[in-house]
Amino acid sequence: MQNPHVRPARYDILFEPVRIGPVTAKNRFFQVPHCNGMGRAYPSAMAAMRGVKAEGGWAVVCTEQCDVHYSGNHLRELRLWDAKDIPVLARATEQIHGHGALAGVELAHNGSFVPNLDTRAIPIAPSATATRGNFPVTAREMDKADIRAFRRWHREAALNARRAGFDVIYVYAGHDMALPAHFLSRRHNQRTDEYGGSLENRARLLRELVEDTKEAVGDTCAVAIRLGVGTLLDTSSASPRDEAEDVLEMLAELPDLWDVNLSPFERDGQTARFAQEGFQQEYVRFAKKVTTKPVVGVGRFTSPDTMVAMIKSGTLDFIGAARPSIADPFLPKKIEEGRFDDIRECIGCNICVASDKLSVPLRCTQNPTMGEEWRRGWHPEYLPPKDTDDTVMIIGAGPAGLEAAVSLGRRGYRVLLADRERELGGRVLRESALPGLATWRRVAEWRLGQLRKLPGVQLLPGNEITAEMVLEAECSLIGVATGARWRADGVGRNHRSEIPGLADGPPVYTPEDLMAGRLPTGRVVVFDDDHYYMGGVLAELLAERGCEVVFVTPDSLVSSYTQNTAEQGAIQRRILEQCAEVRTSTTVSSVEPGGVRLGCVFTGRQTPIEADALVLVTGSLPVDGLYRELEAMEPGVLEAAGIRKVVRLGDCLGPGIIAAAVHSGHLFARTLDTGLTDWTPFRRENVELGWDQPLPPGSETLRLLAEGPNHG
Amino acid sequence: MQNPHVRPARYDILFEPVRIGPVTAKNRFFQVPHCNGMGRAYPSAMAAMRGVKAEGGWAVVCTEQCDVHYSGNHLRELRLWDAKDIPVLARATEQIHGHGALAGVELAHNGSFVPNLDTRAIPIAPSATATRGNFPVTAREMDKADIRAFRRWHREAALNARRAGFDVIYVYAGHDMALPAHFLSRRHNQRTDEYGGSLENRARLLRELVEDTKEAVGDTCAVAIRLGVGTLLDTSSASPRDEAEDVLEMLAELPDLWDVNLSPFERDGQTARFAQEGFQQEYVRFAKKVTTKPVVGVGRFTSPDTMVAMIKSGTLDFIGAARPSIADPFLPKKIEEGRFDDIRECIGCNICVASDKLSVPLRCTQNPTMGEEWRRGWHPEYLPPKDTDDTVMIIGAGPAGLEAAVSLGRRGYRVLLADRERELGGRVLRESALPGLATWRRVAEWRLGQLRKLPGVQLLPGNEITAEMVLEAECSLIGVATGARWRADGVGRNHRSEIPGLADGPPVYTPEDLMAGRLPTGRVVVFDDDHYYMGGVLAELLAERGCEVVFVTPDSLVSSYTQNTAEQGAIQRRILEQCAEVRTSTTVSSVEPGGVRLGCVFTGRQTPIEADALVLVTGSLPVDGLYRELEAMEPGVLEAAGIRKVVRLGDCLGPGIIAAAVHSGHLFARTLDTGLTDWTPFRRENVELGWDQPLPPGSETLRLLAEGPNHG
Repeated sequence: MQNPHVRPARYDILFEPVRIGPVTAKNRFFQVPHCNGMGRAYPSAMAAMRGVKAEGGWAVVCTEQCDVHYSGNHLRELRLWDAKDIPVLARATEQIHGHGALAGVELAHNGSFVPNLDTRAIPIAPSATATRGNFPVTAREMDKADIRAFRRWHREAALNARRAGFDVIYVYAGHDMALPAHFLSRRHNQRTDEYGGSLENRARLLRELVEDTKEAVGDTCAVAIRLGVGTLLDTSSASPRDEAEDVLEMLAELPDLWDVNLSPFERDGQTARFAQEGFQQEYVRFAKKVTTKPVVGVGRFTSPDTMVAMIKSGTLDFIGAARPSIADPFLPKKIEEGRFDDIRECIGCNICVASDKLSVPLRCTQNPTMGEEWRRGWHPEYLPPKDTDDTVMIIGAGPAGLEAAVSLGRRGYRVLLADRERELGGRVLRESALPGLATWRRVAEWRLGQLRKLPGVQLLPGNEITAEMVLEAECSLIGVATGARWRADGVGRNHRSEIPGLADGPPVYTPEDLMAGRLPTGRVVVFDDDHYYMGGVLAELLAERGCEVVFVTPDSLVSSYTQNTAEQGAIQRRILEQCAEVRTSTTVSSVEPGGVRLGCVFTGRQTPIEADALVLVTGSLPVDGLYRELEAMEPGVLEAAGIRKVVRLGDCLGPGIIAAAVHSGHLFARTLDTGLTDWTPFRRENVELGWDQPLPPGSETLRLLAEGPNHG
Repeated sequence: MQNPHVRPARYDILFEPVRIGPVTAKNRFFQVPHCNGMGRAYPSAMAAMRGVKAEGGWAVVCTEQCDVHYSGNHLRELRLWDAKDIPVLARATEQIHGHGALAGVELAHNGSFVPNLDTRAIPIAPSATATRGNFPVTAREMDKADIRAFRRWHREAALNARRAGFDVIYVYAGHDMALPAHFLSRRHNQRTDEYGGSLENRARLLRELVEDTKEAVGDTCAVAIRLGVGTLLDTSSASPRDEAEDVLEMLAELPDLWDVNLSPFERDGQTARFAQEGFQQEYVRFAKKVTTKPVVGVGRFTSPDTMVAMIKSGTLDFIGAARPSIADPFLPKKIEEGRFDDIRECIGCNICVASDKLSVPLRCTQNPTMGEEWRRGWHPEYLPPKDTDDTVMIIGAGPAGLEAAVSLGRRGYRVLLADRERELGGRVLRESALPGLATWRRVAEWRLGQLRKLPGVQLLPGNEITAEMVLEAECSLIGVATGARWRADGVGRNHRSEIPGLADGPPVYTPEDLMAGRLPTGRVVVFDDDHYYMGGVLAELLAERGCEVVFVTPDSLVSSYTQNTAEQGAIQRRILEQCAEVRTSTTVSSVEPGGVRLGCVFTGRQTPIEADALVLVTGSLPVDGLYRELEAMEPGVLEAAGIRKVVRLGDCLGPGIIAAAVHSGHLFARTLDTGLTDWTPFRRENVELGWDQPLPPGSETLRLLAEGPNHG
């Protein structure tokens, strides 16, 4: 039998050092810039998270985008407006360097992509244009003085970035969300001066920025361009093609590194529901044909063989990663050490992206320590040895139970893990069988793989555990992870009590019914008052099976929460194509024989429609009968059985996303509890009271405030 | 002639001191708790803003809501999780006390209203329920231990609030967004224990919290209840009525103060488009009939006579205000001093609310200093005397030009203010004539009133200013505030170039056409790609005038930005009722003879429809011809005319909301410029690098991170 901890030679190519201008990466693993919801609001958390990546073996670890000026102000991300912002960034580079990695920073100005609601600066753009989204803000056209000023700000930020310790400095022209990208694009740039018109003119600013940066810091820092492919389509030419290829050809040897990826972000960061590992290859492979500089690209790479293929096929020099480095910060180290079955593969669900969109620290379905590295001192690989004499029984081997068992097992606890099903995995198994969610199975697979190495964890599949069995288990700590079930009464966000008439209408199905293979036929109303993936995925399933689906949701968008996972547009397109009818901003007001009565959520206007079946994707309830039975026992009964505590975890505590269940299981394994504490169980990041900070030039002094008004 | 600065005796009643338990308010002006987008993210800005209110004469100045525990975590607001949060709050009380006001704090726990995305704590609720919005999070039912714990947290927060210097401590049961309110409500509370069922049971927690708070701090602090009216409808009783009345009757004498307002927030904070000054009176007047304790209520009060009527009619003891105190922090002082025409009345537009919803410092259409008090050292009443020898010419007397002229005039500058119209006010006049926007006229009226007192400002209405006239004006500084115009080519967010076929289709109208009285007839497509108020308001106007309106918008909601101003639901309801057809998620793909071709924004699916006219509410362009003409002059020409600088302000720089135009005019008056600076022109609030903070109990130490993983 092959020693699992010896790396086959075919992977050696991944560990070759690669030169990037004046610096050298120790291997080909490159954590490209990615947002993380921490940025400047959670700087210590951000720095610790980056440090853990470096520790995990990434040769280059980049920050998220870093704003160079208050006129391109992305509320959430890092900033380097001036030297005052250096300490935060220096904390990150210190962590990254501490583990022998190179530190990269993505200098950015978001131009008309941001409305500057905070700084109140009028956004700037190559040509006057409405800002992105629905903000009532119009960006103004930059004049020559503005362009000179922008170059000045960018150069100053590059110098400050070097002072903060960065080794790789990006000029960001990606995702259709940065000023240099806007200059490149005919859609944004209608200028008639030397910065508009021909591609050479439109690329002038990007060229100047790279030249400025190289001149300022190029002797010691590598200078990279991040270029977005897919939003520069030139429809004016005879054979339309994406001008990103021409830009790269034009500036081929100018930067020290090319970071090339799909644009806009919705295409770059596609979920596994819409794109497979390596999906960007066909769009970025042109790059290495026209430049001798190293090229980094992404594609949700988690397979070492795919990575090797990317290098050997001449597609990439560096294996870029954002999401896979979040799911497993130790991905490079595990490959290096030949520990392939320890790799915790990204499932491509984009809960990480949602965290950033919602301005909270990154969370990850696979990696519950993400965002908790500094705050709670959680390390993704290390767990402290057990510090009590507990033996633990966990009932339910869904995502929470599995994670708890693995992490408790690693701590050295003796664990019994029981589940009534013969196959362990709980909801993960059921949901990963739905259309587009196959990769989610990895949540169970990785944990089951780890459990095989943990002899202290005993598995009891196919056991319906009763309170009596718990009392006889000779365990001191009981974790109840019995999951949740979807409600069959329609109670959720829109309805706070049962939908009227439910008993007299067409047959009602819940997601559990469908997942168990109990499928309706004919004309089916899917009522989605959940708004994440389930309603849309079930509508797809039913349409595939030949049902005539009427999709009804009180929200104005299909699967509205998936706006946060950057897949809403793709989902609604698919649902519109597959369903007979889509009714947004509409509720199922009541049910009647042969159909349902729809109601407009704004006016209450009612419309009856016929239906053969009704699928309710509404609220969920914890399946906590066992917990309640144990809690209700006579005083002394639990103690007599040697049980000191019964704890709920995962959906049994609060039904939610799989990431929350995994986090709950991990929390239980770390603290032997999941309850609320009187103290705050994590370190926090407070804003400093900079009350006496001097006012910048042009402002009055605060003295005026103190002395009171002059009503003159 | 009456001396305008002597207050008629009928207003004296507003300046009577009122006792609130152990403390006494010096008058009846009470700034009720209101969110402000600053909170814990901008604590110095928040403290300075509250201090300015106190300086303006409010007897009681409250903070926004203040979270008592990490399990009810409102990302934006203040927190008092423990003593670590005292310094931020103490800074606010110090500012408030510095001007002789009482400081109030609204202790809050948002229960199932918040998903705790940041802290990852499972939300808590009287009964298990989906959290608000579309977050995939379910709150769990609190058990008795949870209720005891919550009381403990609340009591500890009250003690810490006293340590921070507060005089009035709220128990928050308002807006359907706080745990005690959820316990009160049958919709949220389906408990069967002594905290559920009868109203007495449902009010038990609120009673206990008030008792706890009184016991803890009641000797020196007043204890208030903020109670929401409108979400406690008891439909089970024979004559359904809002149980808030019964709650107040039941706990009548328990607190020291009742703060009673409409619930949920969308009803409390209605814009002037939907509710008039004093609109809450009929809902809250019951309060004083059942309690002897003082009652505070709100209603966007800006008229001293209305305020007196509220007291004299026995409706209220305190004139509560949030928005009017934002528009004019010196409202009480101005009434006190009889300076009635100096009152800057709130226009009820809710741009303040939008700032908070979008997590940025409060801005105000009327008061450009709001949110800038600490950051830029801007005082709402005081402007520093002029510090240059400039004479200033301002072309355009819209909101930017008027504000600039007033503020420059106050600084002592000589100003010429010209406008091509005979009536000054620009867009404010045009827009305030539209349905529901009459109060917006106050933006011009207040400034025109102020200008009458500023002899240094010379008005030149009815003058179309040419470049030659500017050169001859003998002014050294030129402010061009010539506004913006709506585009007639359909370019905006959805279309980046002209809508195809526009020239061959039905006649096209812009908002300017309609505001000038050039109205279409028949079947009119209103294409709203702006998403704030204009599209909806014009649709209303056309429907009123008998048009058959088809409202088309690429967004999924009508006037989607108004979600931020808390009026979207009311607007969409109205549009659905008044328009023949409403097509959301739809664009006007092209125009053809006799109609337009609609396109689904998701699938691109096309549908032709007939139309007699097309109204385009899309992008805007600055009207900057004069500015460009001056900028393009031969070198030396401006200098020869004594002109040292030409500056654009308001919509001429970047078309946007009226608040932005007023801010731009004010910025110009303060700094004599509106351009971007190389330095950051305001003080900023950075997060402290609390890297070495000790970890709380139950966490590992960071040492583990530094020492590296144990792959054991």
